[in-house]
Amino acid sequence: MSFPDRLAGSAATIGAALDGILRDHPEGTIAQAMRYAVGGGKRLRGFLVLESAGLHGIDRDAALPAAAAIEALHAYSLVHDDLPSMDDDDLRRGQPTVHVKWDEATAVLVGDALQTLSFDLVLSCDLPAARSVALGRDLARAAGARGMVLGQALDMAAETAEVPLDLNGIGRLQSLKTGALIEWSAVAGATMADADPAALRAYAQAVGLAFQIADDVLDVEGDAATTGKAVGKDADANKATFVSLLGLDAAKAEARRLTDAACDALAPYGAAADSLRDCARYVVSRDR
Amino acid sequence: MSFPDRLAGSAATIGAALDGILRDHPEGTIAQAMRYAVGGGKRLRGFLVLESAGLHGIDRDAALPAAAAIEALHAYSLVHDDLPSMDDDDLRRGQPTVHVKWDEATAVLVGDALQTLSFDLVLSCDLPAARSVALGRDLARAAGARGMVLGQALDMAAETAEVPLDLNGIGRLQSLKTGALIEWSAVAGATMADADPAALRAYAQAVGLAFQIADDVLDVEGDAATTGKAVGKDADANKATFVSLLGLDAAKAEARRLTDAACDALAPYGAAADSLRDCARYVVSRDR
Repeated sequence: MSFPDRLAGSAATIGAALDGILRDHPEGTIAQAMRYAVGGGKRLRGFLVLESAGLHGIDRDAALPAAAAIEALHAYSLVHDDLPSMDDDDLRRGQPTVHVKWDEATAVLVGDALQTLSFDLVLSCDLPAARSVALGRDLARAAGARGMVLGQALDMAAETAEVPLDLNGIGRLQSLKTGALIEWSAVAGATMADADPAALRAYAQAVGLAFQIADDVLDVEGDAATTGKAVGKDADANKATFVSLLGLDAAKAEARRLTDAACDALAPYGAAADSLRDCARYVVSRDR
Repeated sequence: MSFPDRLAGSAATIGAALDGILRDHPEGTIAQAMRYAVGGGKRLRGFLVLESAGLHGIDRDAALPAAAAIEALHAYSLVHDDLPSMDDDDLRRGQPTVHVKWDEATAVLVGDALQTLSFDLVLSCDLPAARSVALGRDLARAAGARGMVLGQALDMAAETAEVPLDLNGIGRLQSLKTGALIEWSAVAGATMADADPAALRAYAQAVGLAFQIADDVLDVEGDAATTGKAVGKDADANKATFVSLLGLDAAKAEARRLTDAACDALAPYGAAADSLRDCARYVVSRDR
């Protein structure tokens, strides 16, 4: 199976799981807007969860709630990031954002409820209880004020700072803002199996950074119709990015170097990890 | 020890635990605003956790993270409820709300991070892992789109509905909006001990409703200086409340009846549950 087919298959499975769970919620605006918010997307994080679980012999059905959990958490972060008081985005995946389609209060509540759902789901995997606790606590560490939310706050602070961030500053910001959830996802299989997470962690850190560099490149080279979101925002905001600091060619070269490093980090798994290697290559070559 | 002293002692213990955890966070606006947001308050929900844990022989130190968790979750709900797009409140516990003291984006992130923290904490109790999983999942069910968030959404919908809610409608709304977290808190001790939760659940349902009726009474009879928040808001908004539907005297009588029912529900615990009975009486007699 080609990588895009494999990714699309996993996205469909995770999407169906989320949709099923949300159809069990009391009917109303919130459940409807939650289904809308978790719709679409590549579901890369969920894919990482399922693949890393497979590498550690965890049954796909046992891992699926964790894959759905990380996608619910990611969706919450997007709904809140898009709010007028945050990034103020009207478009997400080519569709109106939740606060545009409904209103701000609904977007606040939908994000809140999606975060709650993610912890419900991550604690619903058919795993030994101690493994569920580890997954849930690690997820909280990755998502909260020592992880993703801290990265988001640093990003906001950078927008009004007098001195733009340097390469180290951007690296730290991104390792928190987008890297922490990617790392949790890739490491999840080892966490579920109580196995050494070192190889998956090294892979995830390289992939997370490559992912963000590719995002910065897309912001310069992409077009809104393909990416489904506004482009050129970073340059308009005079924001330091990997591209503004390194230049376009060096940024692309660094993304390729990180991809190779990510693939090499998976050596202990041999050919069984080829899907994760394909994923690393896909991350830097995607056009949206 | 008198009940107010006992409650104040537990509030101080829980407050110190939260403050200690947040001082371990990377210094910055978010951690600072999180400490601000969890400051003060009666910490009734945390008290219920510690008392119900004690009734079931759970060590106070083992239960403390769960008490801190529910207070972090409650604080998140207040920070987001106060947002301009939600209830638009400038004052909370006599102090400027987070979005007034900082800004809206900070308030969104602080609420998000406090919710995340609550799941980190609830999974940090020194308990058998299966009990931690049960606590965490029950908390997610109580807080999310089938619990507190649904209640909040119903409350918002009621404000613009053409037909005001009747007594059943208000009862359902409140059992979700404030009742679900109160119930989780009171039942937590039974959950930690894998014991029958029926008596504590009956207690919590009566206390939760009495609490909300008392709140509606305070909105009519209280003054802003004592309650630390705006009063008379419900009448101004022409909102159906227990007081508007029952009248002031009947509402007070119903709160007293519920208090008695709550105390009676604790019969299986005998005199060991007297603190919880004191708490039920306190809830309807408080002036803020």
